[in-house]
Parts: sequence; C-alpha cells; structure tokens
Amino acid sequence: MAVAWGRDGPDLLVTLDRGAGGLGVQLQDQLRAAIRGRRLGAGERLPSTRRLAERLGVSRGTVVEAYEQLLAEGYLESAAGSGTRVAATPAPGSPRPARSEAGPLPRPVEVDFRYGLPDLASVPLTAWSRAVAEAARTVPTADLGDEDPAGSRHLREVVTAYHRRVRAGCAVAGDAVVVSGFRQGLTFTLAVLARRGVRHIGLEDPGPREHEALARRAGLVPVPVPVDDDGLDVDRLRASGARAVLLTPAHQCPTGVALGPSRRRDLVTWAEEVDGVVLEDDYDAEFRYDRQPVGSLQGLAPNRVVALGSVSKTLAPAIRLGWVLAPPHLVAAIAEEKRLSCRDAPRLDQEALALLVESGRFDRHLRRVREVYRARRDVLVAEVEHAFGVGRLTGLAAGCHAVLRLPEGASERAVAAAAAARGVLVDGLSSYRCGDAGTDEHPPALVLAFGNVREQQIRRGVRVLADVVRGGGHDRPAQTHRAVPDRSRTAPGLLCRADRI
Amino acid sequence: MAVAWGRDGPDLLVTLDRGAGGLGVQLQDQLRAAIRGRRLGAGERLPSTRRLAERLGVSRGTVVEAYEQLLAEGYLESAAGSGTRVAATPAPGSPRPARSEAGPLPRPVEVDFRYGLPDLASVPLTAWSRAVAEAARTVPTADLGDEDPAGSRHLREVVTAYHRRVRAGCAVAGDAVVVSGFRQGLTFTLAVLARRGVRHIGLEDPGPREHEALARRAGLVPVPVPVDDDGLDVDRLRASGARAVLLTPAHQCPTGVALGPSRRRDLVTWAEEVDGVVLEDDYDAEFRYDRQPVGSLQGLAPNRVVALGSVSKTLAPAIRLGWVLAPPHLVAAIAEEKRLSCRDAPRLDQEALALLVESGRFDRHLRRVREVYRARRDVLVAEVEHAFGVGRLTGLAAGCHAVLRLPEGASERAVAAAAAARGVLVDGLSSYRCGDAGTDEHPPALVLAFGNVREQQIRRGVRVLADVVRGGGHDRPAQTHRAVPDRSRTAPGLLCRADRI
Repeated sequence: MAVAWGRDGPDLLVTLDRGAGGLGVQLQDQLRAAIRGRRLGAGERLPSTRRLAERLGVSRGTVVEAYEQLLAEGYLESAAGSGTRVAATPAPGSPRPARSEAGPLPRPVEVDFRYGLPDLASVPLTAWSRAVAEAARTVPTADLGDEDPAGSRHLREVVTAYHRRVRAGCAVAGDAVVVSGFRQGLTFTLAVLARRGVRHIGLEDPGPREHEALARRAGLVPVPVPVDDDGLDVDRLRASGARAVLLTPAHQCPTGVALGPSRRRDLVTWAEEVDGVVLEDDYDAEFRYDRQPVGSLQGLAPNRVVALGSVSKTLAPAIRLGWVLAPPHLVAAIAEEKRLSCRDAPRLDQEALALLVESGRFDRHLRRVREVYRARRDVLVAEVEHAFGVGRLTGLAAGCHAVLRLPEGASERAVAAAAAARGVLVDGLSSYRCGDAGTDEHPPALVLAFGNVREQQIRRGVRVLADVVRGGGHDRPAQTHRAVPDRSRTAPGLLCRADRI
Repeated sequence: MAVAWGRDGPDLLVTLDRGAGGLGVQLQDQLRAAIRGRRLGAGERLPSTRRLAERLGVSRGTVVEAYEQLLAEGYLESAAGSGTRVAATPAPGSPRPARSEAGPLPRPVEVDFRYGLPDLASVPLTAWSRAVAEAARTVPTADLGDEDPAGSRHLREVVTAYHRRVRAGCAVAGDAVVVSGFRQGLTFTLAVLARRGVRHIGLEDPGPREHEALARRAGLVPVPVPVDDDGLDVDRLRASGARAVLLTPAHQCPTGVALGPSRRRDLVTWAEEVDGVVLEDDYDAEFRYDRQPVGSLQGLAPNRVVALGSVSKTLAPAIRLGWVLAPPHLVAAIAEEKRLSCRDAPRLDQEALALLVESGRFDRHLRRVREVYRARRDVLVAEVEHAFGVGRLTGLAAGCHAVLRLPEGASERAVAAAAAARGVLVDGLSSYRCGDAGTDEHPPALVLAFGNVREQQIRRGVRVLADVVRGGGHDRPAQTHRAVPDRSRTAPGLLCRADRI
C-alpha cells in the first residue's frame, strides 16, 4: 500500500561520494536502487527537484536530469500538479519480496458476545480530541519531557479525587501511578510483589484465565479461589496460603456477583493476618442499574489494597490510560517498575484525561452511555426470558455482561461452536475456570457481554443461541441468511424453522 | 488542591438503606463523612439538589434539607451562581491526614547539559493536536477496541516506509511492532532474547549505564564492549561470547562517533557466526550536520538486526510512541510480550502519528528543528573554542550532544559538582562507563547535550564550565548571581572575576 506523502515531499536518504565525481549518476543509481529495493514504494511522491538539490548540495540540473532518466526508464511517473511519483512497476530485483499478509478470510461475525469491549460507537471522540487540543495549549513546556515516572501530577490529583468521590476511596495523588491500563498496572504490581517475596496469588475461579499467565510471567504461582453467590470464598483463600489476591469485588468477572459485606470485612482481616495485599480490579463500577453502589475496597483498607482502574471500559481501550492506587509501601516500587519498563504514559493524553474529568465531560459521557447499556440490558433480559424462560440470566445488577444458565445437559462448547458457525460469537463460563476448562462438572452457562452489541444484534444473537440450544445449530453459514425481522416477536421455534430453509 | 469540577457537578457515591428509613439523615451522615474523610475536598462542587435527588431516587426536599443542614454546620458553602461547594474547613477527624508532598526546594537550574531531551519549545503541539483530531474523525470505530498487539497497521506501514526512505531500511509493516518508545521496545526485545536462551548481551562502553539495569532485569548478563574512534570494537564483542549486542551505530551515545564501514560489515559477519542479534538504537539519526547520512544496519542485515526507533527525540518524549523493526523469527514474540504487558499503545495517537508523517508535517518539523540544533551546535562550538581552545569538542557531526575533553588532571566529578553549585548541570563521560564509574583511567571529559538548551544558556553554561575548570567553582550559589550579558565576548577569566564578587 502506498503511503500518501504530503505536498512537500519527504526526506530521502541519498549518500553522494563527492570525491568520486559523477554526482548525477550516483543519484540516479541510488534512486533506482531505492525503488527496486522497495525503500520507495509505488505511488510515493519524490521531493521537488529544487528541494532535493538544496538538500544534497548539488545543482538543480543534476536532479532534473536524474529524474528524467528514471522517468524514461519507467521507475518514476509525473503528472501535472502532483509532482513526481514512483511508478507502479513490478520490482523483479527486490532483495526481499513483500510478504503476503492476508490470512484466510475470517467468517463474518454478526454478533460478538465475547467479553471485553465497551460501546465503541459511543466513544466521545470529539470531546477527547478537544481535550487533547486543550492539553496541548495548556501543558507546561517542561512537562513535555515527562520526568515523573508516577505520571502527571494533575491527572493523579484528578483520578484520586474521582475515586474518592465515586468509589468511596481515600487515595491522594501521591498514592497513584498512572499506567496505560489495567493490564500494565497489574504487570507492574505483580512484578513488585514477586520481588518482595510473595510466592502465591489467589485468582478468582471462575475469572479471566489470562491472569494466570500474567501471574506466572511475573514469577508468581496462581492459586484458584472459588467464587460463590457471595463472591470470593475468603476461607478458601485463607487456606491456600497465598499472600496476595486479585479480585473483582464490585461486580465479579464473569459471574456478576458482588462481594458480600461480611466477606469484605473478612478479606481485610485476612490481609492483615498474613501481611497480604489485595489487588482490586474495579473494572466496571461506573455501570450499575438496580442496586446500590458498592464502594472500593481501597477506601476500606488503604494500607492493604492496590486498586486498579482504567478508562478502557468508560471511554475506550484505544485511549489506554489507567491508574494504580497503592499503599505507601508499594507505590514507589510500582512507579520504578514503570520507569524501567516504559518511562511514562503519554503526557498529553494524561493531561487531556485530567481536563476531561475535571470539566465534567467525563461524568456526562458516563451518564449518557449508562443509558445505552441499560437499554441493551433490558433488551437482553426480555429476549432471554422470551427464548429461554425466566431466571436464566444472572449477574446483571451492574456492568455490561451477564451469565446465561443453559438447560441441563447442554454442552457449552457445542453451543458456542454451533453459534459461531452462524456468526454469533460467545464464550462458555467454563472457559473462565481454572484448571481443566470445559469439564462438565459445573452447570453449563454462557457469558454474554453486551457492551459493544447493539440492541438488534442482541435480539438476533439470543435467537440464534436459543435455536442452537434446541438443536438447530449446524445449518448454513451465517452470511447466506436472509434478513430476519428483528423486532418481530416470532417464537424461537418458528424463527429457527424459517431460518433453516 | 481542589479539583475544579464542571458546572454539572460530579457523580457522588452515596448508599441509602431504604429499609432503615430516615433517608435524609442517612444522606447528611454520608455527605458529612465524605467531607471529613476528604473524599470530597475543599472547593469541590456538589451536584445540584435536583440532580442528586433524581440520582438517589429521593425527593428533592430531602436533598435540600441535607444540604441546608451541612451549610449550617459549615461543611458546605454556597455562592450565587456557583452552586454548593465543600467549605474550606480543617478536617480534624480525617482518617488519613494528607501527606506533605513537597520535598526540599531544589537548587534553581539555569543550564541543563544532561543527556536526553529534544528542544521542548519546538514540539509541534498544534500540528499534533490537529493530527489527533483528524485521527478521531477518521479512525474506524472497530479500531477503538485495539485488537492487534503489533499496533496500528497504518502506522506500521508509515513508519516502515519512513525507515526505508530516510534510513535505508528494508522492513515492511509485518516486521514492525509499535511500542511506547525506545525503552519499552528494548524491554520487550530483551525479554524475548532471554526466553530464547540468550545469556550475555554486549553493551557499548561508554554508553547509557541504565541499559545494564534493563538487561539484568530481563535476566541477561551485560558485557561491556569498548568503543573507540571507529565505534564498537567488534573483535572484543566476538571475544566476549555474547550472542546479542545493543549499539548506536549512526552516532554513538555518548562519544558521537559513527560505526566505521568495515566494522559494520564485521558486525553482521559476527551476528551470522554466532546466530546472534544486533539491537540497533537509531536514536538521533534525523539530525546530522556536516557528514553523509549513515543508513540503518537493519537495511544491511534484516534477519539479524532489531531496529529500535521512537519519536522521543524527533517530536517529544511526551508523545511516547516508538517502533521495533524485527526479523521474522522475533517479531511475533515481541508483539506477544507487548500484548501480555500492556496490550497496545494508544490507538488514536498511533493514527495521529501516521497522519502527521504521511502529510509531510513530520518531515517539515524535522527540517525546522534541525536548523535550531544546527544553530545551537554552532554556538557551542564557538563558545568552547573561545573558552577552552580548538579541538576539545568531538562527536558533533550529528545529534544533539558532544563530548568536551577537559584539560589533563581535571576531575570530572569536581567540575560537575562545582558547576551544579552554580546552576549548570552536566555529566562526566565516566558516568557512562561500565564498571567503576569515576575512576580516572580515562582522560576527563564532559558530555554536553544541547537539544533542550537555548543559545544564551549554552553561552552561559560553557562560561561557567570554563570558570570552574580554571578553579573558580566553589563560589556563591547560582540564584544570587547578577545577570551576565550573554552576548558579550568578555574573556572567561574576566567574566569569572566579575561573577565572583
């Protein structure tokens, strides 16, 4: 793919040997080699003859002559008003053939219920780029050298104030390290814990399996700790011998339960007993519907809890900013991990986020998108009740995902595979379980994430799932389906039949 | 410091127990506790009574009453047109006193010759924020979920095209991984090499000492390899048994020499012999003055060289984007390191950089800032010749730093300390040497980085250094100096004298 250089034409590496004479021939040879070697790609614009002559310290005539020679040889082409460009010729002498980067065509995805994304269509891009522009206007010049590995002081003040206000935290700017998101914050924290002699870390079971890999990579041994209707089982954590635990207390991922009040107290007691550390993943606390908010554990036990937050769910993963709020005995070491790994997050983005939150535009965005999610959740509830019956969906008091309990005897894997063949992607709950995933000792269930799934896609997806569960999974691939009237209340059985012809 | 929330007022975590009754009292208690506990800081604006009532599902009168009670108690204050705010009261019951974050007052720095920063006043902030706005308008919605750990395809195409064009490289988009800068790229590459069984890595001596720490952190053993007037001594590298080396071939950091042509070929031969990897730090190749450009080693041996680049020197450290161009057998592993550590760099910033380069604005910026550096370099040369004599400055053919050879018998440390006491910060060359820094087996020299030092600061800095070298270092601290006429051509001896009174 040709890169569209601007009108001035780009810089170009040409090395002339003034002692050797024949500057024009040298220039021709080098341009020819650059085009044949694909350093200059088809369609790329060359500098003007005047500019290149200036840059190389040769006469303009020398450059004109070289360009004309290569035009004559077909390496270059020129068009009125668009300067001289590299011609679209095959390059037989290319020292390194361009590799084919296209894999097999992926199956078209109509509905993606897999976990992780917020509503990408709602990302406040205009507000964000305005905030970046404001940051560019107001950030002190000295800050462009980004010296403080903990991150922008301004953003640390703003996010800790936000966390105190919305999450009942009690961290101040000095407790915060700005990171690029939850995962980077976790990576740094795990590295520090490993260095401080922590060996085992409790991980929620079920929970994101990838956390096991991250823990092992940091040199820790992950220990699965069961989750029940009250959240993480603290007695089992205590019995495990772990001195650290990572959990999602406000809205467990993926079951959606909240850590019960007595469990919260018990967890803090455990941490004091074992001189332990609680890593709190506060990933979707901003979105709640029909229950009271649950404050951050960090506010309860600031000396024991590392709170990890990010804007990946509230704004977009593409913005890549997050924070670690850590006890005094850990915060400097976490900042040092960051300094050695990557120095800092982008300073202008940090300032932009601070301005976005401070101006109230962040809160406004949250209020708006909360309504989007509430509507999607309501559609999901209605569709699932209609297709599967009442009481099948749990974990919906907050966040952007729910757990759908399948009929007994159904196979998560078979349902997911049959749904995928019809363009509906979904993960089974057992893919979140530690140890042997996919064993059928637990009741079968699916995790339905709806953050980035539009209402009509939710309708379509739930109907396909219902159809598949009833045994109609292995029919024609999704791309040949006729359009299905989305708002119809046709019974699933009927829909399946019409769909299957 | 109070955070200035916007007019709408922020969200606020309040939990009402509807079963317990007395909602107004509960609300009062919680607001009071939030203020006393500093969750709400002095000056922060509360939501309007109407909005808070809506959000909590209570009558507006309940909220009005709670606010009035707290106004009466002095926790809140209200002013016409600016709503209700938290009053600036001392908080005797604060569970966690705000820590003092101010350290001792730093000594005022007048001139900072220490290594690392580009000219921060030249950072093209307007062009950057326009590019971000354009990226926000044009980036596909699906890209906001940033799935590809190698980074934006568009940016990888643009940076590899740039590298082919300007640095004579031969990488294509599939060879590139976008990272947050040189350091992150190095961290990922070192981790992959360690995993692949590499044990020892050669590091230039002298060179940035911090690279030793980064290598050790990745599980590698750093081996110093001497640098002479032709760059890294490849024979010594060969003798070391290392199978990887990190070097700055185009402009050695800090000596400023270029790796000689035969050394370049010999280095590639070495890499083939030992099945080794060359890490090429191409940190300031864009800035050259009176010598021919030297192409990237990556173009010479794409299967052996990992080229590391960033915009930290060309745009600003605050933008935090860079790239790793790696051989096919390493590129996927480096992308996987990135995925596990931090997922991706900010996607909007990646797109903005691609647009900035593609539009020609990046090249234009480079042309402009190159003239800034050239002028600073000329001032440095003139001032040093004037103060220290001819032939003392080396490594100036490219980049933004030079080495100043001190008179025999001078102590780098003593000179640096005396200069610092007068507000001029500078590092000795021995602080870049492996092993015992500061031993005096090498001729004494200073590294003068002038990327972010204005011309008049260069004049002032060189004069202070000359004064200090002549033994006048330990006089009054800098902040009490009278203004010195910067453009005067007063002899240094005279200046010192006037200065010392």
